[in-house]
Formats: sequence, C-alpha cells, structure tokens
Amino acid sequence: MRFARLGPVGAEIPTVIVGGTHLDLRPITTDLDRAFFADDGLARVREAVSGGTLAPLETTGLRVGAPIARPGKILCIGLNYRDHAAETRAQLPEEPVLFMKDPSTVVGPFDTVYVPRRSVKTDWEVELGVVIGSTARYLDSPEAALEHVAGYVVSHDVSEREFQLERGGQWDKGKSCETFNPLGPELVTADEVADPQDLRLSLSVNGVKRQDGTTADMVFGVAHIIWYLSQFLVLEPGDLINTGTPAGVALGIEGQPYLRAGDVVELSITGLGTACQTMEQA
Amino acid sequence: MRFARLGPVGAEIPTVIVGGTHLDLRPITTDLDRAFFADDGLARVREAVSGGTLAPLETTGLRVGAPIARPGKILCIGLNYRDHAAETRAQLPEEPVLFMKDPSTVVGPFDTVYVPRRSVKTDWEVELGVVIGSTARYLDSPEAALEHVAGYVVSHDVSEREFQLERGGQWDKGKSCETFNPLGPELVTADEVADPQDLRLSLSVNGVKRQDGTTADMVFGVAHIIWYLSQFLVLEPGDLINTGTPAGVALGIEGQPYLRAGDVVELSITGLGTACQTMEQA
Repeated sequence: MRFARLGPVGAEIPTVIVGGTHLDLRPITTDLDRAFFADDGLARVREAVSGGTLAPLETTGLRVGAPIARPGKILCIGLNYRDHAAETRAQLPEEPVLFMKDPSTVVGPFDTVYVPRRSVKTDWEVELGVVIGSTARYLDSPEAALEHVAGYVVSHDVSEREFQLERGGQWDKGKSCETFNPLGPELVTADEVADPQDLRLSLSVNGVKRQDGTTADMVFGVAHIIWYLSQFLVLEPGDLINTGTPAGVALGIEGQPYLRAGDVVELSITGLGTACQTMEQA
Repeated sequence: MRFARLGPVGAEIPTVIVGGTHLDLRPITTDLDRAFFADDGLARVREAVSGGTLAPLETTGLRVGAPIARPGKILCIGLNYRDHAAETRAQLPEEPVLFMKDPSTVVGPFDTVYVPRRSVKTDWEVELGVVIGSTARYLDSPEAALEHVAGYVVSHDVSEREFQLERGGQWDKGKSCETFNPLGPELVTADEVADPQDLRLSLSVNGVKRQDGTTADMVFGVAHIIWYLSQFLVLEPGDLINTGTPAGVALGIEGQPYLRAGDVVELSITGLGTACQTMEQA
C-alpha cells in the first residue's frame, strides 16, 4: 500500500492511494501516527480497501504533506555509504554512527526549505527513510528486524556543515534547523519493497545530477541498523530512521556548491517517488 | 505555580499544587503538553486557581509521573559546568555543545531506571531541566530568552559512557536508552524561581553524596543557552532542555563506581524537590 497526507500544515488528511486515487482514511484514523501503527492500522486499512468501504478524496489544490505524522524521534545513521565516507575523508565506521534530528524538522516533500540565518554551508543528502511499525527493543538478530518496518519513504536529511562540524563537537546542531527534514511524497509499505538494499537514490540541484547511488552500497543495511539500534534504545511505531546518504554532497564536491535561496533540489528513490524543494532564506 | 502529573504510565492526571493540595486540571487540559503551553495554559490555570474553580484530586496510591507530557524534543548541553569538564578531561567549550536524547526516555521521578543490557558504564547526571513555554526562533538576544521558559524541573540525564564515548563517535547513542530521563517531581513555573543561576544541585548514590554543585558554575547560563539554541533550531512549547551537570559523575571518580541493579539514586535541586530512582537490570 501507498500512504499520503494531504492538506494544510497541521491539518493533513491521511489517505491510501489505490489505482492512483486517494481514499480518505479519516473513518479509520485521525492521522498516520504512533497510535495508528501501534493499533494495527495497516491491517485495518488493508481490510477497508478490500472491502471497498473508503471514499475517494477530492485532492485538487491540496498540499502534499509528509506521509507520516511528526515522528516520536528521528534517528540518523552517519557515514553509511562507502563512497560518502570517502568523499568526506572519514574512516569507514566499525559500527553504525548514530545522531538525531529534531522531529519538528519534518515538512512535506514539496514544501519550502530554509537556508538558516548565518548559514554558509547548507548541504543536501538524499536518504532512504525507514518508518517503524512496531516496537523494537533488544532484538535477537538482524533477521527479525525487518518485521518492525511499516514502510519506506524518500527522506532529505538537510545538513548545515559548519553548524555540524565546526561549532562544538556534536553533529546534531547542524541537522535540526527549521524545515531540515522534508519527507515523502508517499509512505510505501514494506511488502511492496522487494529488497530495501536494491534501491537507486538520486538527487539533483537546479537540474544538475549530484547524487546517484544505490542502497546496495550501504555499510550497514536496514535490517542490521534496526537490530543494532534496538540494543541501545526503544524503537517505537512511527519513528523515522534516516539510513545515510551516498556520495555527491556539496561538502565532497570540488568548489563546495552549498545551497542558496532559489536553488531547487529534486530527490528520487526507486518506487518511492520524487520530491522537490525550493530553498529560501530564513 | 507547581505542576505535577499523577497516575499510571500513559494515563497521568495533570494537577496544580496549591497549599500542598493537588487540584485536578482535567477541566482545563487533558495534559501538560505542547498544546497546553502554546494555548496559554499557564494563564488559564492561574485564573482557575484564583477563581477557586478547581477540585482537589484524591492522590492516595497514585504514582508520580513526569510533570510534563513527553516533550517534542530533548536538547542537552554538554560539558556546561567548569568542574565537570575538568573531571572528564575535556576542554571548556567555546560555545554550547548540543546533543539530543530520545523523548521516549522520559519517566517519572520515582520510576525504575534500567541498566541497559551489556552496559558496564551506566552513569548519573543531575541537571536543571528547562521547559519551554512559547516558541523561540532566532531570538535577538539572551536578554529576551527567559520569557520563553515555562518552568524548571529536576532532570536526570542518565548516560552510558561506553555507548556514548567508545561506540562510534556521537554521544546520542549513550543517552537514549530506555528510562534514561527521569523528570520531576514537579514543574515549578519560572516566576517562582528567583534566579535560575543560583540553584544548588545535588545527587547521592546509596546515600553517598556524589554531586553537589550550583548553577552559578554553568559555563553558559539558561538565558544564553536558549538564545543560542534558537539560532540553530526552533524551540517549541513543551520542549525540554537539560542544561548540563556539575562534577561528581562516576566517569570522573576514582574507581569509576558505575550504577548497577539495586543502586538507589537521589537527586535534589533547590526549590524544585527531590527525586529518587532504583536501578534495575533491563
């Protein structure tokens, strides 16, 4: 199944997309949030879809929001593609590097992204986003981990490199600026993604292709990441994991062409759709 | 005013404490959360208290929960006391060091705290917790910052030092384990704290005093922290800031007496009350 949330910020209507038509999920849930995933929401939607009980939503003029409600937390894996670690002159990590993003940074896939005030190094990162479907705590092995995935989503881990790397030691400061996590357009359930380690990710800026990678190049795959994280914290339904970015970020390119107001960033992942954001000065 | 939340996990009843009596706030709000603070909740409670319209709550047998609902985010300031930076052999930061904690780690002030599986270095940190009352974004100066504080709270920034420092580069991994942020017992509104930079913080383990500091020793005071953070991200009502810990953590003590199952940790801050947690193995 493919899920979306349409409407103004803070009042998005949850939908499931069947044959290109958005069906209104409000008879089933107020939102695609922790309670929805925890309370077997995916199964209830599947049943409603096959029963034909959901009405189409008139989508004309509706904004596309992030396809999940604000997550309880956003966990990010750093340096998780071999080529990206190389371009940033970082060593390949021996175990997953974890940092976090403020959940309030989530915006829709076509919303404006702000270049922060006093920023000189605002950078892009296309990432495979993993949405957790059920609580994961001290999982026994990576083999069981993918059962805890609700679905996958295009995630933009916008990053300010000076804030991240030159302003006091920890990365979080450059990852949590306003609007720094566009998400979507759609949440695609795990059963429709044959192999999360065989997806093409690409990103262009003003029409110039900058990132073009594959999740096959991850240092730690999705199952390993979920198993690993569950040893350190509790993954809850609706949480988001950004699984790292392939090579081609501004930090790693000759001339370091960081983002400025007016720049247009387009991101795609195989089967998950395309997002497009225009930068504005905050 | 002093606020509390009493009752079972996930079903806490919000109260305001007047003359030692808990008054039931459910006629005013379902919880002490982002919507409550954003929607002028403090003023509405003040009005209801002076109007005498609130009924007492029978508190016998009720668990004491954290005095605020799960925050949208938990921001933590590292190495923010001169003596603590020294004991951990870290340089004094030139600007605030920011890291984050999973908001799901918040538990009540007398709840069990888990020593994580495979942990060998679970450590304590008493901290002044600051709860944000109104949105703060690109504040002009530290002078205006304290207006954005709803109140103060005793916060325990439980930390696993091996996970934090020896497992892959960023601190968040050792800060977000299950139950790692006991909070409370009470939220004391900002007007009742004459000077947040003149509060005594202390912590004992099994009756042995381990931390005994004052917020006067902070490298960056509360107003500076709020102003500073607002340059990098948006502070929202109900967010929690842990402002750092004074010297005396296990990491800095001869023999490094890290926490084990059965240990009892007691924390106090002037005017904010006392919390007490017993450690259990996860």
